Amino acid sequence: MKFSFVVKTVASVVFSRKLICNHSCPGKSVPFLITRKFQVLSSLRSHLEAPAWGSKKHKNKQKFKIPYINIMADPKIEEILAPFRAAVKEQGDKVRQLKESGALEIDLKKAVAELKARKKILEDKELELTPVEASFDRAKMEDLLKRRFFFDQSFAIYGGITGQFDFGPMGCAMKANMLSTWRSFFILEEQMLEVDCSILTPEPVLKASGHVDRFADLMVKDDKNGECFRLDHLIKAHLEKVKSDKKTTAELKLECEDIVIKLDGMNKEEMRTILRKFEMKAPLTNNELSDPMEFNLMFSTSIGPTGLVKGFLRPETAQGIFVNFKRLLEFNQGKLPFAAAQIGNSFRNEISPRSGLIRVREFTMAEIEHFCDPSDKSHPKFDEVRHVQVLLYSACNQMDGKAAEIVTIGQAVDDRIIANETLAYFMARIQQYMVKVGVDPKKLRFRQHMNNEMAHYACDCWDAECLTSYGWVECVGCADRSAYDLSQHTKSTGVRLVAEKKLPEPKTIDVVEVVAIKGAVGKSFKKEAKDIMEALSKLEPATVVEVEESLKTNGKYVLEIGTNSYTLTPDMLEVKRYQKTTYVEEYVPNVIEPSFGIGRIMYAIFEHNFKVRSDDGQRTYFSLPPVIAPLKCSVLPLSNNADFVPYIRQLSRDLTAVDVSNRVDDSSGSIGRRYARTDEIAIPFGITIDFDSLKEPHSATLRERDSMGQVRIPLNEIAGVVRDLSYGKMTWTDVEAKYPKFEQQETKS
Amino acid sequence: MKFSFVVKTVASVVFSRKLICNHSCPGKSVPFLITRKFQVLSSLRSHLEAPAWGSKKHKNKQKFKIPYINIMADPKIEEILAPFRAAVKEQGDKVRQLKESGALEIDLKKAVAELKARKKILEDKELELTPVEASFDRAKMEDLLKRRFFFDQSFAIYGGITGQFDFGPMGCAMKANMLSTWRSFFILEEQMLEVDCSILTPEPVLKASGHVDRFADLMVKDDKNGECFRLDHLIKAHLEKVKSDKKTTAELKLECEDIVIKLDGMNKEEMRTILRKFEMKAPLTNNELSDPMEFNLMFSTSIGPTGLVKGFLRPETAQGIFVNFKRLLEFNQGKLPFAAAQIGNSFRNEISPRSGLIRVREFTMAEIEHFCDPSDKSHPKFDEVRHVQVLLYSACNQMDGKAAEIVTIGQAVDDRIIANETLAYFMARIQQYMVKVGVDPKKLRFRQHMNNEMAHYACDCWDAECLTSYGWVECVGCADRSAYDLSQHTKSTGVRLVAEKKLPEPKTIDVVEVVAIKGAVGKSFKKEAKDIMEALSKLEPATVVEVEESLKTNGKYVLEIGTNSYTLTPDMLEVKRYQKTTYVEEYVPNVIEPSFGIGRIMYAIFEHNFKVRSDDGQRTYFSLPPVIAPLKCSVLPLSNNADFVPYIRQLSRDLTAVDVSNRVDDSSGSIGRRYARTDEIAIPFGITIDFDSLKEPHSATLRERDSMGQVRIPLNEIAGVVRDLSYGKMTWTDVEAKYPKFEQQETKS
Repeated sequence: MKFSFVVKTVASVVFSRKLICNHSCPGKSVPFLITRKFQVLSSLRSHLEAPAWGSKKHKNKQKFKIPYINIMADPKIEEILAPFRAAVKEQGDKVRQLKESGALEIDLKKAVAELKARKKILEDKELELTPVEASFDRAKMEDLLKRRFFFDQSFAIYGGITGQFDFGPMGCAMKANMLSTWRSFFILEEQMLEVDCSILTPEPVLKASGHVDRFADLMVKDDKNGECFRLDHLIKAHLEKVKSDKKTTAELKLECEDIVIKLDGMNKEEMRTILRKFEMKAPLTNNELSDPMEFNLMFSTSIGPTGLVKGFLRPETAQGIFVNFKRLLEFNQGKLPFAAAQIGNSFRNEISPRSGLIRVREFTMAEIEHFCDPSDKSHPKFDEVRHVQVLLYSACNQMDGKAAEIVTIGQAVDDRIIANETLAYFMARIQQYMVKVGVDPKKLRFRQHMNNEMAHYACDCWDAECLTSYGWVECVGCADRSAYDLSQHTKSTGVRLVAEKKLPEPKTIDVVEVVAIKGAVGKSFKKEAKDIMEALSKLEPATVVEVEESLKTNGKYVLEIGTNSYTLTPDMLEVKRYQKTTYVEEYVPNVIEPSFGIGRIMYAIFEHNFKVRSDDGQRTYFSLPPVIAPLKCSVLPLSNNADFVPYIRQLSRDLTAVDVSNRVDDSSGSIGRRYARTDEIAIPFGITIDFDSLKEPHSATLRERDSMGQVRIPLNEIAGVVRDLSYGKMTWTDVEAKYPKFEQQETKS
Repeated sequence: MKFSFVVKTVASVVFSRKLICNHSCPGKSVPFLITRKFQVLSSLRSHLEAPAWGSKKHKNKQKFKIPYINIMADPKIEEILAPFRAAVKEQGDKVRQLKESGALEIDLKKAVAELKARKKILEDKELELTPVEASFDRAKMEDLLKRRFFFDQSFAIYGGITGQFDFGPMGCAMKANMLSTWRSFFILEEQMLEVDCSILTPEPVLKASGHVDRFADLMVKDDKNGECFRLDHLIKAHLEKVKSDKKTTAELKLECEDIVIKLDGMNKEEMRTILRKFEMKAPLTNNELSDPMEFNLMFSTSIGPTGLVKGFLRPETAQGIFVNFKRLLEFNQGKLPFAAAQIGNSFRNEISPRSGLIRVREFTMAEIEHFCDPSDKSHPKFDEVRHVQVLLYSACNQMDGKAAEIVTIGQAVDDRIIANETLAYFMARIQQYMVKVGVDPKKLRFRQHMNNEMAHYACDCWDAECLTSYGWVECVGCADRSAYDLSQHTKSTGVRLVAEKKLPEPKTIDVVEVVAIKGAVGKSFKKEAKDIMEALSKLEPATVVEVEESLKTNGKYVLEIGTNSYTLTPDMLEVKRYQKTTYVEEYVPNVIEPSFGIGRIMYAIFEHNFKVRSDDGQRTYFSLPPVIAPLKCSVLPLSNNADFVPYIRQLSRDLTAVDVSNRVDDSSGSIGRRYARTDEIAIPFGITIDFDSLKEPHSATLRERDSMGQVRIPLNEIAGVVRDLSYGKMTWTDVEAKYPKFEQQETKS
């Protein structure tokens, strides 16, 4: 159990709906590491070497022709894993059986908690037995990220705030590149409707979405100094301590283990009992702890000066799209399906954020809401992705203790592993995007939510997870949210968020409605008559029948509008029944939602691209693909000789003119040292002006970061070549084939 | 005084520092219009016709070779204005004289208020006398903006929230284009360091910047229902009402006028007196009003679960850059000057926001902080903008009652109208950017802050103002902020935010420092010894002398660290004096800050580009330049004939492949009607596939929005042509010269 905190503990945290569906979200413990220096555990063994960016092989990688190697095929390893797999399957079957027999919810919950625990033991074992791919030193990477200001804690000179980060020039440019790639990959390519909605959100909106009531974690407070702790974290840590105490009896140890396993399924009261039974105290001060309380994770504020309009910082961008559904549908000329998208910041007041960019209080999301007819979730472009191979960790495999499997998207839909074409189409596109921006495809899987993890409204939900030193981290959620959100907002506002479709043939329907007799209502209610008539016209058929009954039985009907009530008498109302032929049908569209946590993807990219030069452990760099590299090209004079200056200036201008971001490094230091500096900030290409550049025909050296290969190129061609390399129109192999190699050693210059 | 609310009342509101310097900011009344249908008043008469986008003439416009015509040259108009100009000058001279003679602040304030009032009367008169350029119907424009969902009130289905807006697909795309143009125009072109910092800001940071104490407006509350009113607005409106009452005596009318004029300079107590004297009540309810109170305009919240860490939503993005200064300087290898930039949202809890996008609670800013040596504010690229002509409304001209003047940037610096090259360089660049994204250069001026408007730390400050139907609206601020911000954060944190420069020759300086005697301090203070020694090492020379004195006189020195104090005795300390040769000098960099209010610029662009077809008053459109148009091209089949479908699909794909955003409109309706629809959403180019397109050689019609000109282009060339048009590499004139004209009438198709 050495890595018990490392693996698969951070999933389903970025996205609020997951938190909602998980109720008080106990499953989401923060992973912390006992040692900071350790090795990446890859569960995906592969015989592939990572090809250099820009090489043909790499291009292929972007095109997803990598033959995924089936993992866990080693019979020796499988022999060791067999009992663990069996234990999971046994429990999975038990859960299935309990469900079928309609067992009590509490029993089901306990069985699921036990299933999760067994799954975790199996996964730990899997990772433990997988041969280590490469050593990874997180401390070294973090040092580089900080030193070259990719990002750092916000307000560091004021002592910093946990869970908040500022992106420096390199991180900011990389993030901007990730977003602009996202924009062209999704919005432009799929002609989505992009919106940009308010962050400050009034309470009723988030009441309707469920966030006000259910977007909470349980916490306890230090009675004296007020420090807060997430309850599940606290209990887990305490019981681990008890277990590791030599004096603890075997019986007590077993009890502790049992509690940790079942913690996920426990409610507030059950957790309180454990808290008190073990007489837990505040970790550092040893003070008494308060009873558990729910802590809503939204930041609240007041809008306007009166202090009466309560608002929150949005916990997700999706609601902004849902509340604008009507306008968007109108903009799309009433046609479905269509997708809307939004890129923007969301906020969560985490109780105790840790793990760097993975759990933060302020983060950028990119969300897509694809609206479609619930009876038709096919996708017109599905054939374009049918062949794409993905690593799927289905709910079924999870229940059966099986490993994740590689299948094509088409097969997964045919086999009904993925619920529908649209969901599957987006999963393929998510993978393509992730790999394009630098996620290692060998460290990317889709994990399906098990029935019990899924929000009650969702039909199917898959998380794109990246393997990092924190374990498998959920980076993108892809869910079929059914009609939940639009229905909720319709219920709260009375505005019908629906679409219309032509019926195959006209339909005759019975209409029952209550009509106000204008004169009578007007006379009795004056100014308010208009509101009353409007309210009456909106009544559902069932309510109309109620009105009719009430008029008959009680001689009146009391209509409520907001906090006002109006007594209506038979002389004011007329109930009409008639038939109507309709050619269209109204329906509430369903929503398929891919939701990207940009910061988490970014973190995975950092880990997957952090490299150490084989000949020098101190030379670290990021092998970021050019498309997201913060700067595309460095421009270096060999020395500070004044003759180089005009060439350097002109070159920098030429590069800027063809949209290649670049940076001149004319500081002192050998050319090798300066290359190392540019490697650190992931600049993929470097141009050096030397004494030969001054002679006719003018030329310069172009160097590629990953291979450190160098060629000699005429000065008037070089900007164009770097542009083509940067935008994927040429590979480094092409360049090496076309131009003479430059042999001089970097360090000798 | 017909336009008394329209003109020049909305400036200096977007940017917090302005608000800070204006203290309780009384001058910034919200402009409201008596009638919604009215005419734009252009103070800049010009004989120029606005050339069509893409024409050669237009290209010139982007290059700023437009001969600005001196305004107000009509002798008849000048005759009428003469007494108004004289009145301003008289008062301006009086203010100057008061300053020179060191008059009391209250007298000076009153004189300045009177000066402002006279200036306003003059400006109203100027606008009134300027021949009207074109009729402008704001209601019509707002209808179009709303109907085609450029933007709309946030959470409209929940009743909406004032001062918050959601951008729909068209507004969002336009905003994204404005920002990406900004990014390449400033950040890429000037190699600025872009950062992306937290929105949630802990209190101490904003305490240091001055926002916690001074970023407030005065308001009063309805005693019964709690409704809030901005005090200056309330007083002004009340007095206007009193004035317009027929029963009011001439004497009282004069008094009212006098108060309105002086309102700007009044403090809380003076305003309270007026409030009570005139027995003002809440406008709608007629309830009693509370005493004036300061209302801080920042949204506050708590960070973390304890409720103890107070935070605010940032009111500007600039502070994020200042607190990261050290890291940025390091990133720039210690070299100055350099500029950092940030694009992001800021928040202000306005008391009663109105005027659409101009006064909002949540808005996007783009800010640049250019750090430089205070003794050298030259700019290396100044010669590139020296020739740029700008319309300057200098403080001097404002004091003298003169009109704004057209001068070149170079001349303005030579004549010391603009304080330094760097400030002037940015002003030229601001203008170039504004015109590039669609601001009408004839409705753009730079207004200098007068001495009394300027924050105490600023050396010079210019606002880029756009003329709109709300009057001149401040859209970009460009200020020399001196060393204020870095000094403030240094003071608050003890972290020295300074740069170093090489001295022309080494300097020998006297050093005096107090050194702790380790053993003695350690023995007395144990664990705290380290802190004490660190604190001692940081003492300023003056304090060291104090320590020495105190040890001598009192036999002890009491050192305070935070809330703790430590008594140090002579045996613990040694004061050392020696000489040191230094080769570098530390200094606090100065900051030149261009600060863009993106929403306001966007609003000005909408107004400046709103057009009505001369032959049909119902056909309205936006003549947005292609670079910011939400979509570049529409693709229209002539009818819903199935044969067109493959052509339409292929064309859309071809356009997307060359990065041309496009939209297929295959809805029913004549081609003319669909053109009108695409004109409404500002799509500059439209391609129509008709029956001739199906024949060899395949061709299609390309139409330009502003001129409605059409040409016939081979199908395989068309995507490239539209790309070149969209990215400014080809003009419509070029296209018309190269391809045959297409003569068919739009409406006949």
